[in-house]
Amino acid sequence: MSESVEKLIKTFSRLPGIGEKTAGRLTYHLLKTPAEEANQLAEAILELKKNVIFCSICRNITEQDPCEICRDPRRDRSVVCVVEEPSDVRAIEVSGSFRGLYHVLGGRLSPLDGVSPDDLSLDLLVQRIEKPDPGISEVIVATNPSVEGDTTALYIQRLLTEKNVSVSRIACGLPAGSHLEYMDSFTISQALQGRHSL
Amino acid sequence: MSESVEKLIKTFSRLPGIGEKTAGRLTYHLLKTPAEEANQLAEAILELKKNVIFCSICRNITEQDPCEICRDPRRDRSVVCVVEEPSDVRAIEVSGSFRGLYHVLGGRLSPLDGVSPDDLSLDLLVQRIEKPDPGISEVIVATNPSVEGDTTALYIQRLLTEKNVSVSRIACGLPAGSHLEYMDSFTISQALQGRHSL
Repeated sequence: MSESVEKLIKTFSRLPGIGEKTAGRLTYHLLKTPAEEANQLAEAILELKKNVIFCSICRNITEQDPCEICRDPRRDRSVVCVVEEPSDVRAIEVSGSFRGLYHVLGGRLSPLDGVSPDDLSLDLLVQRIEKPDPGISEVIVATNPSVEGDTTALYIQRLLTEKNVSVSRIACGLPAGSHLEYMDSFTISQALQGRHSL
Repeated sequence: MSESVEKLIKTFSRLPGIGEKTAGRLTYHLLKTPAEEANQLAEAILELKKNVIFCSICRNITEQDPCEICRDPRRDRSVVCVVEEPSDVRAIEVSGSFRGLYHVLGGRLSPLDGVSPDDLSLDLLVQRIEKPDPGISEVIVATNPSVEGDTTALYIQRLLTEKNVSVSRIACGLPAGSHLEYMDSFTISQALQGRHSL
């Protein structure tokens, strides 16, 4: 009915997890909000694409190179946690359970999607580990517990096998607060395999 | 971790039905898409707020006043369908089952939310009906079948009781393809009340 409305609905529905109905709802919401508030959203998107760059050390997203975490003198420089995406760094940071550095791969190995080792920041990871300073002693591979994530973890383990560094993998098992009854069999079998003595 | 990222996540999560997790997912998606595509979204939002106005006749959203529907000579000018929001016009137009004109109230009567008759385009509706040209003979009240929507319908019926116009209400009953077994009791009682002879 209005070209601008149809256009925004179409653009919104290209986003992941947003169907045409949700896109319509969002658009009509923006129509009703004051122009100032709606424009804030537009400007936040423009700013994002203008300001955000990738850290030259760890490939995390940042507005200053190197990123805040790589610059932070209080972080433990001997441990590097390897993750798939910047959003994973955020999730771990929010948990507050890691004080080392990160390395963002920018994806996971997936031949079916055409993602080969060259598409990930693996060269950069090897370079980081080969540098005598700061002297990385442990690499924790925190790629997702999926077929691709596990394959990527295995690949990294082999890649670093000759280097003087220990490579570990995050634990896979039952999430906190979950019930065995409702958990899928694969997770349960992983939890049993990953058992540790008390 | 990046101010622009945090800002966009916060702005996204102000939209209805978008929590912080979804806002994060959308933001990281935009980070990965080419700048051109992301900026398209920003521009579509800016355009929306710049181009879209309200039709002076029916209060529907439009980019030209009067709106496309009010201008269309092929529409039946003797029937007006009263709806709450522009999105309702869109839904009815998509159904292709109505060839008359519309009147968008801009909401529904809801004393609890502070929405009184003055906040809706009721004056404009009365003015339209009082005009001899084009001569409106029927008003179909298609506000939503909720307490507020029904109240609004009743209010409109009383408002137009002295005018030379018939006022009808859209039918309430079982949606097509539904099963009695899974339907709520209120809808079933409405469907029974609204029965018609075959």
